[in-house]
Formats: sequence, C-alpha cells, structure tokens
Amino acid sequence: MSPRATSLNAIFRPQSVAVIGASRKKNQIGHEIVANLMEGGFTGPVYPVNPTAKVVHSTRCYSKVTDIPNPVDFAVLVVPAKYVLAAARDCAKKGVKGLVCISAGFGETRGEGPKRQKELVDICRKSGMRLVGPNCMGVLNTDPEISMNATFAFNTPLPGGAAFMSQSGALGEAILADAKDIGVGMSMFASLGNRADVSPADLLEYWEHDSRTEQILMYLESFGDPEQFMAAARRVSRKKPVIVVKSGRTAAGAKAAMSHTGSLAGSEAAADSLMAQCGVLRVDSMKELFTLATAAQTGKLPKGNRVAIVTNAGGPAILATDSCGDQGLDVVQLSEKTEKRIQEGIPVEASASNPVDLIATADADRFDHALKAVLADRGVDMVLAIFVSPVMIDAAAVAKVFTRHAKRSSKPIVACLLGKERGFEAVDILADAGVANYRFPEDAATALSGLWKLSKLRSADDSGGPRFRVQKKRGRAAIENALNEGREMLKGMELYELLSSYGIPVVPTRLVRTLDQALKATRETGWPVVLKVEAQGVVHKSDLGGVILDIRTEDELASGWEELESRFRKQCPDMRVLVQSLRQHGIETFMGATTDAQFGRLLAFGLGGIHVEVLKDVVFRLHPLSRVDAEGMVEGIRAASMFEGVRGKPPVDKEQLVEMLLRLDRMLTDCPEIYELDFNPFLAAWDSSESCVLDVRVRLKKS
Amino acid sequence: MSPRATSLNAIFRPQSVAVIGASRKKNQIGHEIVANLMEGGFTGPVYPVNPTAKVVHSTRCYSKVTDIPNPVDFAVLVVPAKYVLAAARDCAKKGVKGLVCISAGFGETRGEGPKRQKELVDICRKSGMRLVGPNCMGVLNTDPEISMNATFAFNTPLPGGAAFMSQSGALGEAILADAKDIGVGMSMFASLGNRADVSPADLLEYWEHDSRTEQILMYLESFGDPEQFMAAARRVSRKKPVIVVKSGRTAAGAKAAMSHTGSLAGSEAAADSLMAQCGVLRVDSMKELFTLATAAQTGKLPKGNRVAIVTNAGGPAILATDSCGDQGLDVVQLSEKTEKRIQEGIPVEASASNPVDLIATADADRFDHALKAVLADRGVDMVLAIFVSPVMIDAAAVAKVFTRHAKRSSKPIVACLLGKERGFEAVDILADAGVANYRFPEDAATALSGLWKLSKLRSADDSGGPRFRVQKKRGRAAIENALNEGREMLKGMELYELLSSYGIPVVPTRLVRTLDQALKATRETGWPVVLKVEAQGVVHKSDLGGVILDIRTEDELASGWEELESRFRKQCPDMRVLVQSLRQHGIETFMGATTDAQFGRLLAFGLGGIHVEVLKDVVFRLHPLSRVDAEGMVEGIRAASMFEGVRGKPPVDKEQLVEMLLRLDRMLTDCPEIYELDFNPFLAAWDSSESCVLDVRVRLKKS
Repeated sequence: MSPRATSLNAIFRPQSVAVIGASRKKNQIGHEIVANLMEGGFTGPVYPVNPTAKVVHSTRCYSKVTDIPNPVDFAVLVVPAKYVLAAARDCAKKGVKGLVCISAGFGETRGEGPKRQKELVDICRKSGMRLVGPNCMGVLNTDPEISMNATFAFNTPLPGGAAFMSQSGALGEAILADAKDIGVGMSMFASLGNRADVSPADLLEYWEHDSRTEQILMYLESFGDPEQFMAAARRVSRKKPVIVVKSGRTAAGAKAAMSHTGSLAGSEAAADSLMAQCGVLRVDSMKELFTLATAAQTGKLPKGNRVAIVTNAGGPAILATDSCGDQGLDVVQLSEKTEKRIQEGIPVEASASNPVDLIATADADRFDHALKAVLADRGVDMVLAIFVSPVMIDAAAVAKVFTRHAKRSSKPIVACLLGKERGFEAVDILADAGVANYRFPEDAATALSGLWKLSKLRSADDSGGPRFRVQKKRGRAAIENALNEGREMLKGMELYELLSSYGIPVVPTRLVRTLDQALKATRETGWPVVLKVEAQGVVHKSDLGGVILDIRTEDELASGWEELESRFRKQCPDMRVLVQSLRQHGIETFMGATTDAQFGRLLAFGLGGIHVEVLKDVVFRLHPLSRVDAEGMVEGIRAASMFEGVRGKPPVDKEQLVEMLLRLDRMLTDCPEIYELDFNPFLAAWDSSESCVLDVRVRLKKS
Repeated sequence: MSPRATSLNAIFRPQSVAVIGASRKKNQIGHEIVANLMEGGFTGPVYPVNPTAKVVHSTRCYSKVTDIPNPVDFAVLVVPAKYVLAAARDCAKKGVKGLVCISAGFGETRGEGPKRQKELVDICRKSGMRLVGPNCMGVLNTDPEISMNATFAFNTPLPGGAAFMSQSGALGEAILADAKDIGVGMSMFASLGNRADVSPADLLEYWEHDSRTEQILMYLESFGDPEQFMAAARRVSRKKPVIVVKSGRTAAGAKAAMSHTGSLAGSEAAADSLMAQCGVLRVDSMKELFTLATAAQTGKLPKGNRVAIVTNAGGPAILATDSCGDQGLDVVQLSEKTEKRIQEGIPVEASASNPVDLIATADADRFDHALKAVLADRGVDMVLAIFVSPVMIDAAAVAKVFTRHAKRSSKPIVACLLGKERGFEAVDILADAGVANYRFPEDAATALSGLWKLSKLRSADDSGGPRFRVQKKRGRAAIENALNEGREMLKGMELYELLSSYGIPVVPTRLVRTLDQALKATRETGWPVVLKVEAQGVVHKSDLGGVILDIRTEDELASGWEELESRFRKQCPDMRVLVQSLRQHGIETFMGATTDAQFGRLLAFGLGGIHVEVLKDVVFRLHPLSRVDAEGMVEGIRAASMFEGVRGKPPVDKEQLVEMLLRLDRMLTDCPEIYELDFNPFLAAWDSSESCVLDVRVRLKKS
C-alpha cells in the first residue's frame, strides 16, 4: 500500500475521534454523529467539542480540540462553514491526522465557498492531514476492531464485504438504508462530498488492501482525475469486483468540434470507455447495483454464461428463461447423464430438461436431488433456484437445501423465493446465510448476468501490448513541418508521410490542378479513379457534390472535371483535385481520434457512411489502448457480423483492423499534438493487401 | 356488455359458493379456500362439500353439492382430477352457473388429462356453466358488496382499482403479495390456469364494464385466440390502461421459411405487433408492471412528455434526469415566469431551473411554493418530487404537501422518498392517499415514462382507413392463374399484373434468353441496366454472383452476359436473364409479408440490404394495418432518419412508403392465398415518381 493510501488509516481506523460542533439537541447533525459513534460502539474514545456545552450525549465536552488532554488522531467537523478553517488549524496543532468535514458552504457554492475550500486544503496539505469532504455525510467502518459510524445517517449497516463510496450525501443515506434491507453487508462506507482531497482513486487503492472488503460499490457523478482513477481501477478490478452507478450523462462540449469523431463523442462516451477499459462494471441504477451486489457477496464468479434453472413452477421459470436470454445468458441444454440422473428422483409429470421443473409437490429432498445433479454438470456455470411456496411444502427445509448447496458449490447459486419477503422464515434463512434471494425471477437473472460480466472483466487478457515497428522520427517531421508553418491542419504530403511512417497504408493519390495533369495521374493510379475536390472550407466534400466516383474512361474523366469546375471554381479559383485510385472491394470503416475536455484523447471505430453518421454505430475507447481494447472496438459495433462475410461477400481481416487501431494509438502516443483525426473511410479490403485509408484529416492542437 | 361477458357475473359476483373438496386439515388447499372465503367476509353463504367431513371451518358440510338445500350459483372444485367430472355434473344438476376448477391433471399433463379437460368443457357448455381453469389458484373480488376471496393465497389484497389476470398460478400468489406491499389496490383477480373456457379476451370485456376497475394488468404466456384478444384490447385500451407482462419469448417456427420476412419474424415479433397495434402496453418484468400500476392508479395521464423535477438534494435529481432522458421524457426548461416565481420563495443557493433544487433546508412550505409554481407552468405535463429526509425537517408535513398537490392537480405527480419504506410516517401518508412513491428516482422516472406511453396509446388516432383505388379482379386473376397451374410461386408477368393492379409500381424489366434479346431490351429500358439471372433454385441471387449492376455500354452488356453464362449455364441450361432499368437514385427499402402459425399474417418494413439482413432493423405489424400502424412501421426503424435526407442526399416521400404498405395490406386482404411476399428492394426514389419495386417474390399457400 502506498503511503498515500496508508494515510487513510487515520480516517478509517482511528484510535480516537473528536466531533467538532457536537450538539446537545436531538435531530441536529452535531448530535446524531456523536450518538451514532457512541451507540455504534466505537472502540476508542469520542470527544465532543463545543465552546458552550459541558456535556454532550453524557460525555464530557471540550471547548476546543486543543483542550483535549489525550491524543486525537481523527476529527469530524460539523461547525458552520465560517468556523471550519479555525477548527482545522486547531486540529493541525493538536496533531490530528484525518478530517471529515461534514459542513457545507465550500466549493459547491458561489461567493466565498471555493476560496474557503482551497484554504482548507492548504491547511491539510501543510500539516499532512487527509480530508474527506467537505459537504458530505461522513464515513463508517464496521470492522469490530474499530466499529465506527461517523455519519449522521439513521441506519447502521450490517457488517459484511461491500465497501461503498458515494459522491452524493443524500444517496448515501438511501444506500445505507437499502443495504440493510436487502442484506448487503458493508465493510466501509464513505460519502465523498466535494472531494477536495480524498478521491475515488484513493479509496480504490485503500480498499484494494482491506482484507474485509470483497467488492467495491460506487455512486459517482464525475471521476476526479481520470488517469489516476483508471490506473487504480485497472489494477483493483482484477482482484475485487468494482461496480459503479455513474450519473450525469450529458453530451456536452463536442458541439463545436470539426470532425466526425468529435461530434459523435461526448463526455458520456468517454465515461463509458473509461469504465469498460478499466474493468469496472457500470450498471444503470441503484437498484441494479444492489441486485448485483447481493449476488457478488459470495465472491464466486461463473466460468461461463451457462445457466441451469431449477423450479417448482412453470410461469416464473419462463420469465427467468426470457430474462436470461435477454441478458446474454444461455439456459443451456443439460447433458444426457444429468437429465437421466434428475429423472430418477422426480415424478413423470415433472421435467428434467432445463428449466428443470420439479412441479408444485417438490419438497426439500427433490430440490436437493435436482440441485446436486445440475451442479455436477460440467456444462453448467451457475444455477437459479426458483421456489414458489405451496402451502403443503416445508419452505424452511427447501431454503436450507439451497443454502447448503450454495455454500458447498464453487458455482454461483441465486434463489428466487417468489413474492416472499424478510419475515418469512425461508427468506430469513437465505439472508442469514448470505445466499442472494430475489422476489422476482427477472432480478435473479439480472444478478447472474452481472456475475458473468464481472467474471469476463476480471479474466480479460490485458497483457501483451502490440509489437510492430514505426518510424516515429519521420512521422513527427510531418507534424513539425505543419507546426512550423503555423498550421492546424496537415496537408497532402504531410498526411501521407505521417500515416505511412506508422505503417498505415494510404490509397494511391495524386494532387492535380488541370485536366491534363489528371489524365497523366491516371497512368500511375490506373482506372477506375475517383475525383475529389480540394477547396478551402469544403469539409464534407460528398455532401456538396465535391466527390465523383467510379470514373472509367478518359471521356468520363473530362466530364467529371467539368462538373467540379462548374461547382467549385467560382468560389475557389485556386481549386485543386485529388485523383485517387478507386478502391471499393471491401468494407468502408471509420477510425478516428478526438480530444475530450475531461478525459483526454479518445479513439473511435465504426463502419463508414451512414453507419457512423446516421446509425451512430460507433465504439469509443480512451487512449492508450490495450490489445483487448482494440479488439473490443472491432467486435463491439452492432454491425460487427459484416466482417465475417455476409450476403455472399468474403470476410475481411479483423486482425488488420485491430492492428490499424493500435498503430493509430501509437501515433497518438508519439504525437501528443494530434487533437482530432479521422480516417473516413479506412477500406478493409476483401484482399487485405489492398486495404488502405481513402480519406484522412488530421488537426493539431493550437499551441 | 355481451351475454358472454355478463355470464361471468356467476363467477365474480355470486350469491353463494360451494367449495367441493373442502378439507378440515390446515395447509390443505381445500381448507385454505374455505378459510379465505369466510375470513375474507364473503357476503353470501359458503357451503363446504366433502363426503366424509361433517363440519369444515365451523361450518356445516354436505357430502354432495346436490345435497345443499339452498340455491348455489358458484362452485370451486378442489377434488382430485379423477373426481372433477362427476362433481361438475352434480353442479350442472344443481343449477350452478359458474365453476372455478383449482384441481390440476388436465390439459397441462400427458395421458388422460387433455381428454378429461375436453369432457369438462363439454359438461360446462351443455349446461351453460362458465369455467375458470382448470389448474389455477382461483378468483377474487374486493367489491364490498361481494367481498370474495376464492383463492388459496396467503395474502388478501387491498381493495382498489386494478384488475389482474395471471396465466400462472405461482405468479398469481406473488402478485397478490406484491400488490399489497406496494400499495396497488385490486378490484378483481383471476388466475386463468389452462384457460379451457374463460380467456383473457373475456376478462378484458368483463372488466371494461366493471366500474370499480380502473386499470387492467396481465401476466400472459400466450394470447389464446389472438383475433378475439385484439378486438377486445383495441376497444378496452381506449378507456382503461391495459398493461401486460408477456413471457415465453421464442423465435420458433420461422426457421424453415424461405423468405427474408419469414426468417426475420417469429412469434415474438407477432406478439409485439399484436400488443403495439391494440393499445396494450407491454412491460419487461413484473417489477416494472407494479412500478407503473402504482402510478396509473390515479387515472391521470400526462398530455405530453415534459417533466419537472422538484428536489431537496442534487444526486438523486441527477439520477432522475438521466433516467427520464433515457426513457424518452423531457426534463423541460421552465418558463421565465415560473422560474421567477420559484425564486421568490427559495434561498439564493437553491436553483429555480429544472431540476428545481430546493436544497437540504427545504421544508413543507418551500416544497409547497415550488410545486404550486411548476404545476401552474403550461410547459410542464407531470412532476417528480424527490425528498431526502434530513433530520431537521418534518417529513410528514412534506408528504402532506405532496398529497395535497397530487389530489388537486390534473397533472400526474409521483414522489421519491429516497430509501424510505412503509413504516416511515411520510411514506405511509403517501401510500394511504394513493400517491405513487418510490425508493429510487429511476423507478419514479420509469413510472412517469409508462404514464406517457399509456397516454400516447390512448390518444393514438386510429380512425380514417386508407382511400385508394385498386383493381382487385385483375390482381386476383394473376393469383388464380398460378393456382390453376399448380404453382406456389408467381412468375414474371403474374407478379407485374398483381403489383400494378394494386397501384404498386414495378421497375421496367424484360425477360430475355439471348444476348441479342438483351441488347434489344435496352432500347426499351434505356441505359444503365442491371442483369439478373433467372435460374431455378437461385433465391439469393446476389450472393451467388447472379446480379450484375450498372452496365453502361453494349460492351459491358456483352461481358456481363458472358459472366452469367459461365456461372449458371452449366447448372441451368434453360437460363434466362432479366434486363432491368437501373434505378439507384433513392433509398432501397424492404417490404414483406409472412404468415405466423399462431397469429396469421404479418407485414414487415425496413431498409434493404444489410439493414434488414445483418442489422435486423425491421418493424413488424399484424395484418390488417391501420394508417397509424403503417406510419409506425416507417417511423419505427432505427435508421428512419435516413428518410429525412442525410449526407447531402435529398429526403424521400415517406407518405408514399406508408401508402405502399397500405396497398400491400389491401392486397393481403383481397388475396388470402398470399403466404409470403418480399419486395426486396422497393426503391424510395429521390424523385418519388421514379419509386418502384426492383425485385419481388410472392409465394402462395399450398391448398
């Protein structure tokens, strides 16, 4: 653990705690925190601090933290904002190592607030104190050695393996309540507020090394420092599931961008890529987060996506089957051996094929028999056990069977006791044993699907970076040439130099000014050719009739030339034309890069033409790419099956596409000046030796 | 109400009830039903029937239903299957008018069961008894005049406005439990089991006329008679919301189909169309059903999709805003006047723009002030009120403000008391007042989105059928010609005759056998042309290289001809070739019809080529189409924005596409022999007078 992470012990594992702004009045935050600390059984002493009170919550109260005769390593600040700086200075003087500032009135406000926050951070930095908040609802650690509830929440969660951070205090309260109801035990909790110091990345690293924490749950509105977050999450998610609800989806900032990539991306795409790339599972709602967290508590992840459903009623099993299918799980056919084995213990009206329907008369023994059989099947990765409680069946005994198998098996098992709640004995048995149980089969399916996603994220092969040669010097020369001339946009030869030095093939092209030159050029490019106008201000050429395709003869060339003349010569007397070999036997793809204000550079991949512009079938990843990232881009578009060869067309070389993305990524590494870039299209030719960039645009950062 | 519907009064509004198979033993179904009837306060007499018991549940027991000295109009059968027929005959003799058969062992089993079910239905038909079940869990009516719980469920629901039918007994039990927990009051409930007589369509009609029923909820695995269901649902959904969870999604039956349409469709597509066309809202899970039912209880539907969010905490409002956006709602900008009005009653740190953030210090008065203002804004159609309960605020008073506005306003209001449950006073206040309240903001957004969908379904203009002339006789002549020759597939001229008689334009085409004839044909079609091989067994021509596009000269024609010769002449000595005018200035669409085993004929629409085959971007509707259906098909594909003109291309005439679908639909009406049909493609030309079918395939039903 780094020293930066170790320093968080002062906040999560303190020896003593001072509550500055402790209050005698019930329902005041300054009272509730003291009450939560003491009633929660904090293992060290609690020192209330308040200049006017003598006793708070039956405990001797001090007027200043410096008056406390014993050492204090942790303080919670609940005083009004204007007193916070003085209190923090006192804490520094006293030798406090960790602060949680509950008080609001800092960076989240206008006026004095942001300046005050900066001063607070300065005080902490100078004295080496770590700071959670300001404007938060506190922190909590259920470790019996600490047993600290330094929040003002109504609810104390059950101890367990989930560590939770919330950027919103209000949601934090709801989270604690829900975790308790749903039966998700917590190791630690932190409400981060304005995150002036302690960040999500800090907590990721801290919890990575906390032996009680088995999964990490987050509610985030923004990432703070995305690079720090990405580095920490990439590492931690290999060891512990990291599940995130990220809100605040807005496609801001990209409106004015010139390129396709820019206008397609947005911070939302960047946030999605960031999470996809660093092994974090993003879920859509708090509800889904808890649905999954319940199942992830056991730490068991499935090896594949094959589900067996064992049920005593048909309807819910159909719902479960549908829902599994919708979420990418396979309600698999059981082996003949398994079916035969099941058949031996069930009546003839029951069904031994998946979903295994034991019918309403099924008791604990029949469930035991069937579960044993499906769990032993090598073709089954996880099990969903559905039980509708018929009046004549001992439900508690069935729940005990589920519990026993869930404990023994290395395969995840989730239960659905249809429509039953806490208070029903069988439900309580499952909850107490930590077996995930849902009222509805769809939720159980969602949980299993989430486990499978976590399993894939954990095992994704992220090693083995790309190996290929590039000519960095030659590529950079092209860029420096443009920069020296004060240009943002690269020109013809520069583009060719840049791309070819990174091993990215470019279509044979000649730039000409006259029809005569064009004719000559065709001797080098061969027929058929494409004409493309090069006129200032013409960006989307084809939209303006500036591209003429499939010219096969000298006559067609002449008439095409005339067309361009009539359309563009007037507005652009200096008109020039690209004569390009027509390459069309393949699939036009789109590759690009853009720069996001919050996250930095992003790469994009899709099919060319309407796929990218109208259907928005594009996948983004943050730079730098791993090989897995690049593969995920090529496989991730909706139209990916096009690459396999459809409608009588041959397949294309997907590996080549992956390599091109990695080469482009390397170019971005070597050339931080590249702000936006489009290959539109890159032709993935049926014959991959013919593949090449047909049109390219590169824009540099204005320095 | 039809006599068929009226006859259900015997089941839902009986004067007396006999329980045949009543039992003295607790936890036996025959005991629980008697107990539920009596403890539920059924307003008529309950007669237990059991040949061996004297008294059941402190009530005199009879050995046969015919022994009962008083009239009996309703009987519940709980005896083992083998005794059911005899008991039913006794009931008929006694003059019973309605039966609910709980017993299993009928159509759902192999062996004797199906035959037994048929006999049971015969007994009922002959004597005029209506039958619910067999293999079900009973029926229930909360009307205080009846107060009948004839189920063996643990839970009795609260009275209210939701009528619920479930095809699965197991889910029925869960539904009753959930409805109670969630606070959805029920008017009636029916578990339909094998649906040997009473069907979903029957219940739709019965509940249409029940004044206590305000919304109809269903769990279905299949529709029974789709035409009957469609007719009833189309009518009822105009008056009361009909919300359905339909499970059992399988793409069966379509595998062997020859056409694209056939292979794309499946019973799932048919079920989706059926529901979309008859105003029924399909939701994905039982949970979503209840989420929506809670909000639909008030009967208030929004006039548009514009939401105002009023909150006292930022985080949950961001989640709500995201979730609204994801589900097609508009978190709208408030009018200047409204913002100004709100500003007058809130502190400067609060925000008067939507989402309106009243910050943590907001009490009941501040909420009252803000709600009044947003509800008065004409640009707001519905309101989501979020309240995170801070310790110092009187939550009950805030809940009362929500309740008051929800009652007064004609605009729907839903609440989110973050993370709070029944038992918390404010939650109970909302529940008792029938105000929908959710623990998480995403669910509140889902509920509002559902209300908006219900509103659109109710107000969809379904009148005004298409008006155009067709030449039915000429069209049918083409079909009869093929039938007379014993052919399933229509041939060249027949296809032309059929389509043109329905006003569907076909591309100029000549069928030729030699290169000479081909050359001659181009004088009629003009240049450029397309060559398409006509060889037996060649279905997907382009996949096999049987289509040569864009032939511009006599030389190109000759070499194209040679290509086809070399590819096909050997396997097909009788090879013929279509010479077709090349029409390419437009968008290639796909239109088709297929026949679903369960639902009958379906129409399909999409874009041609990879859109339909690879991207599966297709919309289906059941025949017959309304104008709204046809418009929904054209607007419903993902790529619909293509029609507006993109990438510098002109728009196409969408009205023409709608008309073509309606003409095709009329053709299906007039020609029930059409089994499958593809227009692939129909070119929607930039100049709509050039639009035409480029390739067509029609297959007739084998008679």
